This record gives sequence, structure tokens and C-alpha cells, in this order.
Amino acid sequence: MATNFFCLMLVLFQSVFALNQQKPNIIFMLMDDMGWGDLGIFGHPAKETPNLDKMSAEGMLFTDFYSANPLCSPSRAAMLTGRLPIRNGFYTSTYHGHNGYTPQNIVGGISDSEVLLPELLKQAGYYTKLIGKWHLGHQEQYLPLKHGFDEWFGAPNCHFGPYDDVSTPNIPVYDNEDMIGRYYEDFVIDRNKDLSNYTHFLIEKAKEFISRMHQADSPFFLYWAPDSTHDPVYSSEKFRGKSQRGAYGDAVMELDYGVGSILNLLKELNLDQNTLVFFSSDNGAAMLSSSCVDGSNGPFLCGKQTTFEGGVREPTIAWGPGFVKPGQISHQLGSLMDWFATAADLAGVSPPTDRLYDGISLRSVLYNGEPFNRPIFHYRGNTLFAVRFGLYKAHYWTWTNSWEEYKTHGYEFCRGENVPNITTHDQMNYTAQPVMFHLGRDPGEKCPMKFNSEYEAAMKLIKNEVMKHEQNLIPGDAVLDMCDNGIMNWAPKGCDKLNKCLEGPPSEPFKCVWNH
Amino acid sequence: MATNFFCLMLVLFQSVFALNQQKPNIIFMLMDDMGWGDLGIFGHPAKETPNLDKMSAEGMLFTDFYSANPLCSPSRAAMLTGRLPIRNGFYTSTYHGHNGYTPQNIVGGISDSEVLLPELLKQAGYYTKLIGKWHLGHQEQYLPLKHGFDEWFGAPNCHFGPYDDVSTPNIPVYDNEDMIGRYYEDFVIDRNKDLSNYTHFLIEKAKEFISRMHQADSPFFLYWAPDSTHDPVYSSEKFRGKSQRGAYGDAVMELDYGVGSILNLLKELNLDQNTLVFFSSDNGAAMLSSSCVDGSNGPFLCGKQTTFEGGVREPTIAWGPGFVKPGQISHQLGSLMDWFATAADLAGVSPPTDRLYDGISLRSVLYNGEPFNRPIFHYRGNTLFAVRFGLYKAHYWTWTNSWEEYKTHGYEFCRGENVPNITTHDQMNYTAQPVMFHLGRDPGEKCPMKFNSEYEAAMKLIKNEVMKHEQNLIPGDAVLDMCDNGIMNWAPKGCDKLNKCLEGPPSEPFKCVWNH
Repeated sequence: MATNFFCLMLVLFQSVFALNQQKPNIIFMLMDDMGWGDLGIFGHPAKETPNLDKMSAEGMLFTDFYSANPLCSPSRAAMLTGRLPIRNGFYTSTYHGHNGYTPQNIVGGISDSEVLLPELLKQAGYYTKLIGKWHLGHQEQYLPLKHGFDEWFGAPNCHFGPYDDVSTPNIPVYDNEDMIGRYYEDFVIDRNKDLSNYTHFLIEKAKEFISRMHQADSPFFLYWAPDSTHDPVYSSEKFRGKSQRGAYGDAVMELDYGVGSILNLLKELNLDQNTLVFFSSDNGAAMLSSSCVDGSNGPFLCGKQTTFEGGVREPTIAWGPGFVKPGQISHQLGSLMDWFATAADLAGVSPPTDRLYDGISLRSVLYNGEPFNRPIFHYRGNTLFAVRFGLYKAHYWTWTNSWEEYKTHGYEFCRGENVPNITTHDQMNYTAQPVMFHLGRDPGEKCPMKFNSEYEAAMKLIKNEVMKHEQNLIPGDAVLDMCDNGIMNWAPKGCDKLNKCLEGPPSEPFKCVWNH
Repeated sequence: MATNFFCLMLVLFQSVFALNQQKPNIIFMLMDDMGWGDLGIFGHPAKETPNLDKMSAEGMLFTDFYSANPLCSPSRAAMLTGRLPIRNGFYTSTYHGHNGYTPQNIVGGISDSEVLLPELLKQAGYYTKLIGKWHLGHQEQYLPLKHGFDEWFGAPNCHFGPYDDVSTPNIPVYDNEDMIGRYYEDFVIDRNKDLSNYTHFLIEKAKEFISRMHQADSPFFLYWAPDSTHDPVYSSEKFRGKSQRGAYGDAVMELDYGVGSILNLLKELNLDQNTLVFFSSDNGAAMLSSSCVDGSNGPFLCGKQTTFEGGVREPTIAWGPGFVKPGQISHQLGSLMDWFATAADLAGVSPPTDRLYDGISLRSVLYNGEPFNRPIFHYRGNTLFAVRFGLYKAHYWTWTNSWEEYKTHGYEFCRGENVPNITTHDQMNYTAQPVMFHLGRDPGEKCPMKFNSEYEAAMKLIKNEVMKHEQNLIPGDAVLDMCDNGIMNWAPKGCDKLNKCLEGPPSEPFKCVWNH
């Protein structure tokens, strides 16, 4: 009876999809430094995300979904290429196990040899847009329009600042090819009041794009990437002071509102049956502020920058009544890189076969909840730190950040948490006998398993997965090694129209310093 | 429009209640050492509590609900008397800030001068039953049938053991007046396999009682208190190995199943409209096991025995379509002692006016979501450790457990967590300038607030609440000071019928040793 019902549902789902004929629209909603524990449905006690909780109730919630890296740029590059940073080049070879990203003075960016999802989808007739943060390199050759996006509204780097525009320029905001202003100058972020209209713009831009695509009757790919939960956090006046969580919570509430608005628009336009929406975050919540104005990683250990669960487990939801039944919970081990594979699969396009991919299509999981076994590899920079397989996680290396940085800046990526010999300021090499946690019994990674028969059996499986992984691994050329203050955003294309071109120093490349 | 709808709903609710005329049935479901983070709806990543999650969706979920004490016996005594342990006597005066409870050799128990909820409800025509753990003293004068319960099936103390029946007897199980067997002997708990049918009995007993009350058309009070999530954890064969969380999770799954069965029976018997069900736990999840076979306190600090959030914040749900609309989330600061007040209020009985109560009726919260301001006082033994008011929590004292105990037994009530100068093995006296956390921004109590104007303003309010509290506080006689191996469960009433009477040592009272 259950089986018959299930089969009927499957046929119905497939029929809807088949009837539609047209390509499914794809939306990636990727938050910035939002933690697993920030959503009500994932257990935040403030329960201030009614729209995301509803999205989850209408779709599929993923409890065990991972970023491709504990840091922003590599995670985003991996999501768009379907390949780990160690393959696509988004790492640094200069230091052992240090994270790198794309600050203003980074020389590198996404390689032309990488094929991004929007490039693939364009081949299949999709119209593609990025709204929000890019972070895959800001020199002209690396920008979104050079890598498959038809349109872009947003900024190439983080909204740190304000800068003095003399030693460091403020970050430009682009509308397609041209700069249309800069953060803090034309797009105000009031750091005293944690106030900015920027998320509001990004929500409106998303709705405008979706409506326009509906009018044009074109399949579309929208990558919606607001950055307001990244330090310094901000929200619009409407949401300021509304959360019991302070400025960070206000930002979450505005994003939750935005998600709700976008899903509602899809329903209004009858696009919901043919649109698949993924929601997640690029990495775990950051733990920098001594006043706790940041996100929550729920019960998980440590945060952003680390390969503990708090650094890599993401609050992930898939939504789209044409693709996924409501109210499902999936324990499938997933990765942001799976979004690449799933979107390509559903759009019917095949990525180049001359390279290996880490993402796997989630089609069977979405359509009928069928899980599959697979390992998740957690790198920090150039080093494989940890591997999850089944409910087990083996740490080959553990580290938070250096003693030097901790003592100088007080940075603690495991604020208030201390697992002896694990959450250390020294890099701990456990490759000879990895430290293992059972994430079912111990999701918070507090009790290392004993070296018993259970350990041996799990380790045997994991070692086998690592061997297969490493046998086939061809590291890409590291693109995060070199920096140069001369290539900062002094004079982005279009600055002349705004009279916003700045004079920078001459080019003088140097090896980037990566602290953690 | 919204207001009209709301008023209409209110009228409807009141009408249902008025029409019923009969007294509402009351069920307290109190778990043992279950943590806030153990339920899916409260964010456990295993999401293995579908029935409790549904109960929450059909009722009201309380995010900020507290036990009356971070330990079992005092918490349960407070729940049934509506009064803090410092008033009802469930504390020890021997040590500063140490927790006491009711092991087998405790001399004391619930005082005859305390009026328990079942006593009040009996006056109003209720038939009352306790199914499960008592823990308010095991000498005959302290047992449930002496304090308002018409019926009892269960045990007076914890299911530690097995004991040798020579130096320590196994704990008896009672059916009403008489002992019907002992844990480990007649009620098997297989500690190697974490196996026991006992929860199954307790579920069946609850259903039998409800059905019988339905037949008799009698208003009833059921206090359902299973203990399978208390160390040593156990579950029935049917649930063994079913959870991804191990033996503890198996126990949670069986309890979740039990809750679902009981609620379904209420619906089947059409008792749901006139029955109010509360679900919660007696204190935070314990953190003793070095293998993490225990509960989750979600994002909260430390666990059972402590006055940090992990020790006292409870996973609380109110259910009953006649009393509470579905799908509500309440941030009302609540306490288990409010159950006493709410039940008395709804049953129309008035507790004696010659004493003070700490519980407040939640009628307005349940019926129309109207919250009210109130402080929550967190005691450890004889000492006020912390006070919550609004989103602020001031710690007057902080402590985990003694250095000695930590070094001897390795007990860590804050396993893997370390907030400097807060989660210490020395008792820290902050009464001169309490350490404060903002639980909205920092629910995990990781970032003590600075001593700024916000601190001053909040502290002023809290000091005022403490002053009022202490002005009117008349501590009860401490009942947890004296122990005596002669009064253990050697020969409980009815043991002769089973040939299970044991010979104990002569009475030799001594001051109990409380380690934490």
C-alpha cells in the first residue's frame, strides 16, 4: 500500500516534470557566514525565521549537508565548479593547511579552464544572473560576466571597510559590466547602526529578474548571494532592532523575509512547479566577536575557518513542489558541490568529461528520498584535514588558529569550547591514527572514539575512500598564493563615468600572508 | 480583520471550554535528564522525534522554559508544589551551593506541610495517578499515595544498579500500595544491551489509565514520568539500535513513540478537546559519560547539576486543542512550577493562601499567547546562583563541580566547553558584580557582557527582583541533610508477598555527602 502510493507519487512527479517540457529554473540562495543553528527549524531558540521554516516544511530539509570548504571564496568556487578547491585551484600552496580567499589584493581568481555552472546552463538555453557577492577574483578576467553569467548586480569582494580610498579603496558595486558605486560611499553601510539598504536592493533585484524571466518565458538560473550576515553585519531600517539576537539576528530576519518574498513571487507567477530552489550558507558561522554578534552553529564544534562541524555543516533546504515532496527530512550526506551536479542533471547538460567532479546529483534524493553512500572530504587550504563517511568522521589534522594570532588578535574559532588536544592552537598531526567521532552519538565532536573494533572497521572504510580520492587527485594550480596592492579595486570598469577612479600604487606582487 | 479573527477564535475557545463544563483532564509528561536539544523541533540533527515535533506543531512550543532546579528530586518536588526547593525543603543546608536529591539512604522526603497538586485536584473531584518515577522520598510516609495520588505504578528512586541486595538493595517497583518486584530482578534492565521493557509498561499503563478514566467519565490527572533517558539508559527491543544516536537515542525514540500513542488515544477517545498535556524534562541533559551516550543541550552551556542554560532550559510543549491553538511558539519565560499553577487554575482550585508560590498560571499564554514579565530564580542547593529576567541572565555564583571530584571521577558537567572564570571547578562568587549574559544575542553564555550602561540598566531591574524575592523568602526546613543506610529499600511494603524482604543494617543516621 505504502509502496503503491509511493510509486504513484513518483509517476506523478515525473509526469509533472515531463509535461513541463521546459527546462527547470534553478535558484541558488547562498548565505554568507550563516550557521547551521541560525534557523528556527534547525533549533535556534529565537525561532525568528518563519519563512525559512515554512520553506523547509514545504520542501526537504538536509540535516547533514556540508560546504565545500570552511571559508567563503573556496566554498563558492567549489559550488560553481562542482569541484573541490584543491582541484579548481582555490587554495594556497604557501602554507600547510591555511585557508586563503580573495581579498582586494589577491592576484588570482577563477581559472578560465574551469567550467562554471552558468556556462553549462547557458549552453542549454538558460539566462543566468548573479545577484550579490562574487568572491571568485575581482580582476576583470575573473568577473562573473566572463564566466557564464549574463547579468550581475553586486560586489566582487567582502564589504569590509570603510576604507580610506588611499591605502585601500572601497569595494565597487557593479550592475553588469560597469561599476555603479562603492560600498560605504554610494551603498551606505552605517557601521555604528549596523544599517544598510543593500539586502533590500538584492531582494528587489531578485524579484525583478524572476518577473522579467517569466515575461520572457525563459528558463533561468539565479544565484542569489546576499552578504549581510558576514561581519560587519547590517540590515534595513525596517528590521533594525526587531530580533532578540541583536544586529546579526536583524540581518537574518531580513534575509528570511527576502526568501519568503521570492518564494511567494514564484507561486504568484506559477513558476513554483518548475523551479528548484536551494538554500544554504557558504561556511559555518564566524566566531570572532567577543560580544557574540554573530551566528550560531547550534550544537556543533567551533566555527568558520575550521574543519570541525561548526565550520562546515550548513543549514540546507531544497524547495520546489515539482521536484520534491513537502515535509521531508534527509540525512543524505550532501555538499554544496552537489548543487552543481544536480542543476546540470536536471537541466540535461553534461559537464566536460576531461576532469573529475566531487559533486553528485541529488536527483534520486529529491525525487524519492533515496540516499546514497559517499564520503565528504574536508580540506583546509592544501591539506585534507577530515573525512566524513556514514556517521563517522575521521580527523587527520586538527587546528583552530595559530598561537601567534590568538595572542595578537584574540581570535578564537572555538569560542568557549575546548576539546583537549583537538581544538588546539598548534596543528595536530593525526594522520598515523586519525581522531574519530561518531556524529550520530556525538554530533558536537566532544568525545573521541576509543581505538576499538568499531574504530578499526570505520577507519578501514574511510582509508579506502581516502586512497581512492588521493589516487585520482590532480591538484589544480593554486590561485591564492600571490597578492599585489597595485591590483586592488582602484579603477574598476565604469569608474570614469562616476568620476570614482582612484590612483593606486604600482604593481608589486608578493606572496600573500594567510594567518589561519 | 486579524483582531476580529482572533476575538472570534478566543470566543470559540472559551465556548468549547465553557460547553465542556467538566473539569479539564491534565497530563504532565516529565522526562528524565532529557535535554533541550534532544527533540528534532528543538534542533537535534538526528530529527528522530516525529511525534513530539507533531505535538509541538499541534500545540505551543516554549523556547524559554525552565526546570525549577538543575537536579531531579528538587525539580520534581517544585513542580508538584509550585514552590522552589528552597521553600519546600528539597535542598541541603550542609554545604554551600551543593545539589542534593533522594538516593536510597536519604532520610527525608516531601513534607506533610506541603500541598501537592494531586491533593488539590482530588479536592476538585479528580482521580489522580503517577506512572513512573517518584523521587520525593521513599520511606512510606513520603510515597505518592500519601501525597494525593490515588494510584501509582513505578519506582521511588533512580534505577541505578544492579545492586547486590546486601550492601545496597535493588530499587522496588510499586503497583499502588504494594511492591511488585525490583529493578534488575523482576523488571530487567540489561546494562550490557541497554535493554528493558520498562518504558513499554509505562506507556501501556498510561493508556490503560486514560481508557479507564474515559469509561468512568472522571476528570483525571496523570503524571507520566518515565526514566529511561536517565543513566543507565535503556529501551525495548523494538527500538534498540534504531537511532543514529546509540542507546540514548533509542530511549528517546521509544519515549517519542509513547507520547504519540498517548496523544492518539486521547484523540480516539474524543478526550483531546478537554485534556491539557504538558511535556518537558526535569533538568538538562547529564554530561557524565566520556563516550557521549547522553542527551543534548543544543546550543546551551554545560548540563545537569549546573545553573547554566544547559542545566535548566527544558524542551517544553503544551498540547490540547481545547486550550491552545496549533503551531504557536512562545518565548514566555516559564517554569515547571507554572504547571502546578496552571493546572490548579484550570481545574478551579485554589492552593492554600498561607504560603508563597513561585509558579504562575500560564492560562493567558495558552489561550491567547499573551506573555508576561517575571523573573526566574536558579538555585543550586541553598544558594541563589543565577537570575533570568527578560533576555538577561545574571550569575551571582558560578560553578561546575569540585576539583576533587573532577580529578577523582573525571566528572565534567561542561564537557568540551570552557568559558574562562565561569565554568570553573572553584565556586566563583560574583555577588558583588554578577556576570551577565544577554541570552538573545548569546544563548550559549559564551560572551559575558561588559559593565556598560546596558548592564547597569538590566542589573537594576534584576536586583529589584532579587530584593523582592529575598524579602519574602522563608526557607523551608532542609529535608536532604540526613542519610541512613538502615532506611534503604530493604523491606518495602508488600515484599513479604513476593518473598523479597531483605535484612538491612541497623539505623545509623549521618550527614549526607553531596559532592556537587
